[in-house]
This record gives sequence, C-alpha cells and structure tokens, in this order.
Amino acid sequence: MPAKIQKLSIEPRIRFNCGRRIAFGPGKADLLAQIERTGSISEAAKVMDMSYMRAWTIVKSLDRGYVEPLVVKIRGGNARGGATLSETGRRVLGIYREMELSSRASFQENAVQLRQLLKP
Amino acid sequence: MPAKIQKLSIEPRIRFNCGRRIAFGPGKADLLAQIERTGSISEAAKVMDMSYMRAWTIVKSLDRGYVEPLVVKIRGGNARGGATLSETGRRVLGIYREMELSSRASFQENAVQLRQLLKP
Repeated sequence: MPAKIQKLSIEPRIRFNCGRRIAFGPGKADLLAQIERTGSISEAAKVMDMSYMRAWTIVKSLDRGYVEPLVVKIRGGNARGGATLSETGRRVLGIYREMELSSRASFQENAVQLRQLLKP
Repeated sequence: MPAKIQKLSIEPRIRFNCGRRIAFGPGKADLLAQIERTGSISEAAKVMDMSYMRAWTIVKSLDRGYVEPLVVKIRGGNARGGATLSETGRRVLGIYREMELSSRASFQENAVQLRQLLKP
C-alpha cells in the first residue's frame, strides 16, 4: 500500500514571534511572494483569498517591523497602484524560504520513522 | 537595545498532512504530552483549555490513524477513568519532539540574519 502512504507530507510552518506579535510566518511569506509575483497588493490579496484591507494591514505591520519597509508601493499603474518587494523584503522572504528548506532537510530521518507508525 | 531584540523566538510548527487530514501537529503533540503528564484525558483537556469532548475526538482520530492506538484508557481511577500513552504514542511524540529540535537547530544561522533585519 505504498501509494497511500506516500500521501504523507510534512510541512514546517515556521513562525517568528516577537514578544506576543507574530513578526513573520507562512501566511505573511505567501503574501509577500504573491505581491512579488503579481506586482500588486490587490492582485496578491485576490490570490490569497483575503480582502484588500486585510492584505494592506499585514503589509503595513510588516513595513513597521523591519529596518526598511518590505513592500515598495509604486504610484500609477492600475487603480490601486503597483507594488513590489524592497531589497529587505526579498531578503526576509529568501531567509524564510531557506529556513523552510533546511528545516525539511533536518527531519528526513524522523519522517521515515514516523511513516512506519502511520496506518497505511 | 539587545534586551528587546532577544524577545524574538522562532517556533517551528511542524504538521504532518496525510492527504487533506492533519495526522499530527503541535496541538496534538501538546495534548498527548498533557495526557502523559496528568494521566487523564479530562485533566489534559482542562490544561489545554478545550472541552473533554474535543480532546476525546482528537484522541479517537489519533488512535485510528496509527498502527496502534496512541492513548491507552485505564478503567477505574477517577470518574472518567485514567489514560496514558501507549508505546507507539510515546514513540510518535518522541519523534515529533526530535523533529522540532532538529528543525530549530537547522535554522540558527538564518535566525541571526533575520534578527538583523528586524527593528529593535
């Protein structure tokens, strides 16, 4: 029954807590990635299935938390203006994706052990 | 300002997804740990601030998902009977905690880089 067992995926959801605030996590990472991909906060919000207001609030809180805003707003373009990641934004997202990769790599051996304990 | 910066904690929340079902994750790990510590599902539920019914449903779904039930119910004792982890339960929890530790260890270097980008 290996076909069924292979469905197991192990997902590290890494959260940076700064005091009681979540400074960064999987949702914020995906939002930044979508802003970079679409070039627009409103397009990114659509893809993430969240309101523009919610995406905007997250971007604002991210901007405040780091040495430089993570998202650069570009005037003009579509109705709400375009947006892209700042150099710091790209670095934060890059570091986060590296952490996900190294985390995944770190527990491969344990994943094999665990797979054996799951019912097929 | 190192006092403030030190507040940053990086938490790997590792989830095993089996198809669309979450087979194991941080909440389930904490519930098992509390059952082992208190020797009772109802006491564990109290500590976790969840209803007995919810804890019981999680335990039942865990029991079904693995080669052996993860929680062993002991008749007698208090009103609802005692409970403890089976050998498989202890192994699953142990493997999970190891994954958390190795994940944390894997991204220490990235954490230092990230800390430098956060506002103090």
